[in-house]
Amino acid sequence: MPYINIKVAGKISVEQKKEIAKDISDSIQRVLGKSKKSCYIVFDEVERENWAVGDMLLSEKKKDG
Amino acid sequence: MPYINIKVAGKISVEQKKEIAKDISDSIQRVLGKSKKSCYIVFDEVERENWAVGDMLLSEKKKDG
Amino acid sequence: MPYINIKVAGKISVEQKKEIAKDISDSIQRVLGKSKKSCYIVFDEVERENWAVGDMLLSEKKKDG
Amino acid sequence: MPYINIKVAGKISVEQKKEIAKDISDSIQRVLGKSKKSCYIVFDEVERENWAVGDMLLSEKKKDG
Amino acid sequence: MPYINIKVAGKISVEQKKEIAKDISDSIQRVLGKSKKSCYIVFDEVERENWAVGDMLLSEKKKDG
Amino acid sequence: MPYINIKVAGKISVEQKKEIAKDISDSIQRVLGKSKKSCYIVFDEVERENWAVGDMLLSEKKKDG
Repeated sequence: MPYINIKVAGKISVEQKKEIAKDISDSIQRVLGKSKKSCYIVFDEVERENWAVGDMLLSEKKKDG
Repeated sequence: MPYINIKVAGKISVEQKKEIAKDISDSIQRVLGKSKKSCYIVFDEVERENWAVGDMLLSEKKKDG
Repeated sequence: MPYINIKVAGKISVEQKKEIAKDISDSIQRVLGKSKKSCYIVFDEVERENWAVGDMLLSEKKKDG
Repeated sequence: MPYINIKVAGKISVEQKKEIAKDISDSIQRVLGKSKKSCYIVFDEVERENWAVGDMLLSEKKKDG
Repeated sequence: MPYINIKVAGKISVEQKKEIAKDISDSIQRVLGKSKKSCYIVFDEVERENWAVGDMLLSEKKKDG
Repeated sequence: MPYINIKVAGKISVEQKKEIAKDISDSIQRVLGKSKKSCYIVFDEVERENWAVGDMLLSEKKKDG
């Protein structure tokens, strides 16, 4: 019954979400033997001004890692 | 001092939020003996393209369960 | 596909968890029309020294609300 | 490697986010000896109709505490 | 700067954690172009009596999916 | 009504928790004007084998940053 939450800074595409969800659910199934359908994956696209690394907001940086 | 986070796919109405918050805080008060006012309940309305079940985004499905 | 996380300070019994899970999944089903089986509920029993209200840890208080 | 998530009801300004991120990463560095750059801080600005205290949504109240 | 949280019911081995962390950070790097080292992955091994599917605790079931 | 969750790798002392809770609730009060008592702060002390940076578990490293 895994539940996975993925937080990323900024927007990502539907295709990227699908590809990551596939990779993660494949991994969970292969490594833990859990059915893919039992696996909930929730993405949070965090605005860059809402993510700080130390005292610097990502919106102030040129590019995040 | 319970803290409850509820993630649902898609939008729900203010009336639905009120009804769920009432049910949950009633339950917490009755079962655990905590005051309602100590109970924080936060809803996250997750866009359907941000919720995957296994490798399928909910936005690709006809209807979620 | 709701996902609910409940954080409480201190330990609660299995019977209390069952009762709260029943109340919440009943509410989700009645108010949102989601099947109970699609509803994941995860409890976190937080040690009282790991929960602060303002600058006071609950382990320092006589009783939480 | 601390990860900090801050949920507030309503919007806050970029300046407020910067000031809070500075205070928290300073505290983590001073108290725990972790480098600021290892510290991720994520803000969630929760709509007031998505935050309940007991059975009352904050959007129904005059003012939150 | 992705942050990933993985909740599973019951204990998993160190080897399983390493394999899943590798798969996920590989995916994040390949799909999103983020460096692996910017990726924090946190596992929560949830006791089965703390995870309910609807009104049934996993500790009451024979086996989770 | 802020809610703050702090995840750190490994154990920290009660004194460290108190100091961090004081710093954070002071900051929230000063910057946002919220009362300290409305501020819930929850610490998660994550075992080092449950925290990965990229594909490396912290338990495999000499020291985290």
